[in-house]
Amino acid sequence: MNARRRSDVRTETIIKATLDLAREVGYAKLSIEAVAARACVGKDTIYRRWSSKAMLFLDAVLTSSSPSLEHRDTGDIMADLREVMVQAVDLLARPPWGPLYRDLIGEAQHNPEVAAALNERFIQPQTADTLARFRTAQEQGRLAPDFDLDLAFEILSGPLYYRLLITQQPMTPAYLDRVLHAVFVGMEPRPQP
Amino acid sequence: MNARRRSDVRTETIIKATLDLAREVGYAKLSIEAVAARACVGKDTIYRRWSSKAMLFLDAVLTSSSPSLEHRDTGDIMADLREVMVQAVDLLARPPWGPLYRDLIGEAQHNPEVAAALNERFIQPQTADTLARFRTAQEQGRLAPDFDLDLAFEILSGPLYYRLLITQQPMTPAYLDRVLHAVFVGMEPRPQP
Repeated sequence: MNARRRSDVRTETIIKATLDLAREVGYAKLSIEAVAARACVGKDTIYRRWSSKAMLFLDAVLTSSSPSLEHRDTGDIMADLREVMVQAVDLLARPPWGPLYRDLIGEAQHNPEVAAALNERFIQPQTADTLARFRTAQEQGRLAPDFDLDLAFEILSGPLYYRLLITQQPMTPAYLDRVLHAVFVGMEPRPQP
Repeated sequence: MNARRRSDVRTETIIKATLDLAREVGYAKLSIEAVAARACVGKDTIYRRWSSKAMLFLDAVLTSSSPSLEHRDTGDIMADLREVMVQAVDLLARPPWGPLYRDLIGEAQHNPEVAAALNERFIQPQTADTLARFRTAQEQGRLAPDFDLDLAFEILSGPLYYRLLITQQPMTPAYLDRVLHAVFVGMEPRPQP
């Protein structure tokens, strides 16, 4: 086993210990000391790679949950959006990842380094992929030609984050369908045919 | 000064000390001990009224920011929604309340008592008031007759919470106008007249 491979194995061990402990004692009580003991490494080994408990936790959650939230293009924009939303909710709004992801966002509220890394590693790639899918749909005439595409991702994912972080109401596929339908048709009264 | 009045004054002093300290040292480093010292009361006095630092902080933030987020009915649903959204964003997304409100929501991610109290005292009354305003607008024919009113509040406020908690992008009145417009007209292509 060469040095690179040994380092990878050690990283995996530390990440697994972090997630196991976070699930057992909660993020608030997680400590670098306990992770080091569980992973059988020195604290220095951890601090060489991660600047803080918060950044270790972020890396552990994002590396391990690794959702593939890329949109297919089947020609049906609503179906393609729905497919990714169902996957995201199944992964990020339920145990085991739901509570860990909520802890991560909780930490981001007072830790700008975590907030920036969360956006860069997780939010921005999803936003870009969703925007590309919306752009194709608009070119194909499946979205209103003047719809504000730069808002599309936050209008669709905003209600889901609101449920996850504020009301904690369930997010069933039927709920996602209601959100998609409401955002697609809008609130405006239509002239009757 | 009677006993009731003395108790009110003491409560105000404790709440002011809590907010002052939270702004000075941040919520994470806030302690009941420090609040008691700043307010010149015993810790027991605080614990008789608040079960934890988190519940004291929640009470302090919600009592003192006390936004009046009630909708007027001018007959123009978009203008009435916009008025409340501008107020909410001015209050809750900027210093001094912005960071404190974000800390409160951060705490709610792993503290079910805080999450429940936040919903009961702050989110549910706003939701009910918004729903009532939407219902009137629908009866007046200013919203699509089949629009899913139970979703209206989370579709409108979801994008704002998403900016506040996830991307921390600015929320200007121009941004609120874009959200209102997008949600009002929807994504769907319209038949050209």
